[in-house]
Amino acid sequence: MIKHALSVTREANFAEWYQQVIAEADMAEESGVRGCMVIRPWGYGIWERIQRLLDNAIKATGHENCYFPLFIPLSYFEKEAEHVDGFAKEMAVVTHHRLIQKDGRLVPDPEAKLEEPLVVRPTSETVIGAAFSRWVQSWRDLPVLVNQWANVVRWEMRTRMFLRTAEFLWQEGHTAHASEQEAREETLKMLEVYRAFAEDCLAMPVVAGEKPENERFPGAVATYSIEAMMQDGKALQAGTSHFLGTTFSSAQNIRFQNSEGQLELAQTTSWGVSTRMIGGLIMVHGDDDGLRVPPVVAPWQIVIVPMLRDAPEDEAVLEYCRALRAELAGHFQFGEPLRVLLDAKAAKAAVKRWGWVKKGAPIILEVGGRDVAGGNVSVIQRHQLYREDGKLNAQVMARGDFVLEAGVMLESIQQSLFLDASDRMQTSIRRDVTDFAGLVEAFDEGGKYPGWVEVSWARPSGAELDAVVERLKALKLTFRNVPNGAGAPEGECIFTGKPAVERILVARAY
Amino acid sequence: MIKHALSVTREANFAEWYQQVIAEADMAEESGVRGCMVIRPWGYGIWERIQRLLDNAIKATGHENCYFPLFIPLSYFEKEAEHVDGFAKEMAVVTHHRLIQKDGRLVPDPEAKLEEPLVVRPTSETVIGAAFSRWVQSWRDLPVLVNQWANVVRWEMRTRMFLRTAEFLWQEGHTAHASEQEAREETLKMLEVYRAFAEDCLAMPVVAGEKPENERFPGAVATYSIEAMMQDGKALQAGTSHFLGTTFSSAQNIRFQNSEGQLELAQTTSWGVSTRMIGGLIMVHGDDDGLRVPPVVAPWQIVIVPMLRDAPEDEAVLEYCRALRAELAGHFQFGEPLRVLLDAKAAKAAVKRWGWVKKGAPIILEVGGRDVAGGNVSVIQRHQLYREDGKLNAQVMARGDFVLEAGVMLESIQQSLFLDASDRMQTSIRRDVTDFAGLVEAFDEGGKYPGWVEVSWARPSGAELDAVVERLKALKLTFRNVPNGAGAPEGECIFTGKPAVERILVARAY
Repeated sequence: MIKHALSVTREANFAEWYQQVIAEADMAEESGVRGCMVIRPWGYGIWERIQRLLDNAIKATGHENCYFPLFIPLSYFEKEAEHVDGFAKEMAVVTHHRLIQKDGRLVPDPEAKLEEPLVVRPTSETVIGAAFSRWVQSWRDLPVLVNQWANVVRWEMRTRMFLRTAEFLWQEGHTAHASEQEAREETLKMLEVYRAFAEDCLAMPVVAGEKPENERFPGAVATYSIEAMMQDGKALQAGTSHFLGTTFSSAQNIRFQNSEGQLELAQTTSWGVSTRMIGGLIMVHGDDDGLRVPPVVAPWQIVIVPMLRDAPEDEAVLEYCRALRAELAGHFQFGEPLRVLLDAKAAKAAVKRWGWVKKGAPIILEVGGRDVAGGNVSVIQRHQLYREDGKLNAQVMARGDFVLEAGVMLESIQQSLFLDASDRMQTSIRRDVTDFAGLVEAFDEGGKYPGWVEVSWARPSGAELDAVVERLKALKLTFRNVPNGAGAPEGECIFTGKPAVERILVARAY
Repeated sequence: MIKHALSVTREANFAEWYQQVIAEADMAEESGVRGCMVIRPWGYGIWERIQRLLDNAIKATGHENCYFPLFIPLSYFEKEAEHVDGFAKEMAVVTHHRLIQKDGRLVPDPEAKLEEPLVVRPTSETVIGAAFSRWVQSWRDLPVLVNQWANVVRWEMRTRMFLRTAEFLWQEGHTAHASEQEAREETLKMLEVYRAFAEDCLAMPVVAGEKPENERFPGAVATYSIEAMMQDGKALQAGTSHFLGTTFSSAQNIRFQNSEGQLELAQTTSWGVSTRMIGGLIMVHGDDDGLRVPPVVAPWQIVIVPMLRDAPEDEAVLEYCRALRAELAGHFQFGEPLRVLLDAKAAKAAVKRWGWVKKGAPIILEVGGRDVAGGNVSVIQRHQLYREDGKLNAQVMARGDFVLEAGVMLESIQQSLFLDASDRMQTSIRRDVTDFAGLVEAFDEGGKYPGWVEVSWARPSGAELDAVVERLKALKLTFRNVPNGAGAPEGECIFTGKPAVERILVARAY
């Protein structure tokens, strides 16, 4: 039996395993500030890769980056009731602008109370809408296509690193258009950008589709999501795109004169992904030895660990490693130079090796005196850490061969991670459930069904939908989305018995 | 006489000119939220260039990026009295975590009052120090070298876009070391990174040196700055680097076991630059037609403006421009592909030209039917907008020649902007003032001396220094820094009459 690098397996306790991966890979830690985490270099390095790649795609689709205020006056929220209802319960409120000493403690200065309290942005539709109302006068000013990378705060009572934290990092795109059709196209275009990014860069297969009415963003006319399947079978909403209609243009007065000279309300959209994606990455690709980072988003794709023994030959080993690093760094894959680290820290080679295994560097190269003598490297591909006999899968290769093949090897690792996750997801979506009893049975604890169920439904709304949602809630289930291209529904709605109009995914979720 | 693109000149009203450049170049605007601005695409694009280039330099010197919480509990500040004194008067304080409706208005929910109020970070020494205390146990854990890109809030009463806003964007580096010498070296190394970045990337000459005691960062043992000279002769502190000694390691308990097994306090540093640099860029390079952006940090280095006339030949002009854009974008300068925009918006060519003049794109290419027929382009170099006769300096060049020369042209624009600013600064520092009366006279309003004065002083401290600072304050003057390499002082301190020990810069400042 293999002795894994983590002390808890996914099978034994998935939630604890998740926390342990984050801790052992030095990705993040509790900060001591309620609900806020410290993102450490390896976790933040993955976020920087996400930012870089997604930012390119956001710009390639015609959007420009801006920056809007962290603080939003309460009066901005008062203009849009539904939006307020969605966020009021979890807002951090700034009420004072000075501290004073009192009885040896620091306290907010009662003399420095704000006339109007400010909310720390939970999302920026209101404050960006106010800017749009200044920028948009004529149809010639449209579309407005902007994005910002920012921190936002939602005062969650139960937090979990990366998945749900009081403060998190994200990008939020906001656009205004002259026609509903154009705004709806924008909403779907960005959903597709997210799908392609998740699958091609994070190697994380997703289902893209429309959320049901009860899961819409507060104020949205339609909300779409990408949903990823975690290894425990739960769903993670990994990105959303909203068609907002005229909700925010009415509230913030974003009007334009159309080409016929008439005044119209603009049609707006918003869309975002956050550091939550990193939580998804962990739960899709991690294994019992820690994280496995897809090469496209790995801060370091290849880590060279010199096997030093406090001996005179050490210098030759280091020299060999330095030259190897420089040589590799001159090669390209995925359109960028390879990211190669020489880990020359003062620690034992085995400790360093297992450190990088837990962090999930895609390729770990070990180089000892014998490798130098033979002109070789010892190659560990993190995604296939063990051989069938349970031994570590380290492959000795001629250095020159490895240098030539490194790029292709990274590409094949990326594909392999995607295919594994994709197979798992595809075989874990049941589509044969035709009544509510079947749904209950599918998620029965005894059965331990670790996936999702796609069923036919009649798309109820209002109170009828609420009743269905309550029935699901009792089973700890939620609607995820109506998958794009799911095909025509068969028979009756399993919830209402009415003729079905579409297929919808049901799952437990984060 | 030239009719400039702005309605106010630097000479007539520098402060108003500054605001007009920002507005006319669409860089930023008031947000409606007190003291917070909206940074628009052209302003934010410059910030993205600053981030990209400086981030490379910060990583090249061995630092890794992290992310720390936005909120800091009051108790963290209480541990370091001097630090609190420096910031308590301008802190935004979060006291509640929920809103409720009351009499039709949103108000903070009295039931959701935080037990311990949270400060929105004005700087992160305390919360990062707390993380360091978890990370550092042994000398083997040192040095710790981290940086974060973040927003910070200081509740300034008088704000001015980019220069002094309640919320601003910056990077803050934080490091911990085993020895004082190493920490002092780090402080100076990062000061040098800032100097090189300001001069080589922003084309903004600076004087690097140590701030006097009264200008130190709250809690620092020594503070260094780079000081840039604006066109009105005032100084702008454009970046700072602090040696913090054991101030924060005592307060936050950052202790390590040294190689002899004894417990020691770590020596820490911090250093930062902010969106303020963009304010400096404007005031160093702007002219009466708007901004001039140095090519290295220009979001678009070359903007192609097609001269369309709603005629059939328009398509040929556009096709020529598209091909030109693609061809230019395949060339490199400063180690990166040229950043080339084809401005095909529906607006008159003259309006677009002057829009890009005001934004300060380094090269504006105009292409009309005649240029297409002749295989030419019309080239405007923004830094030399007019000929000696006052006419617009547009130069017709063969397209092929321009493509080959574009990179070198950008390099020469970059140099030219730096040399102009450098000449102005060098000729505007007086070094011949030998007594206090001479200093008063130098800054006499009648004389309108538009620069700085470097004088000899005895480096007084404590109450003696305070008295000197008060005398300067009465003249609206401040100490800037003791320039590195200023040479030996001559004679007596012009403030105290004691033997001088060094040279220090005196100036009006932002």
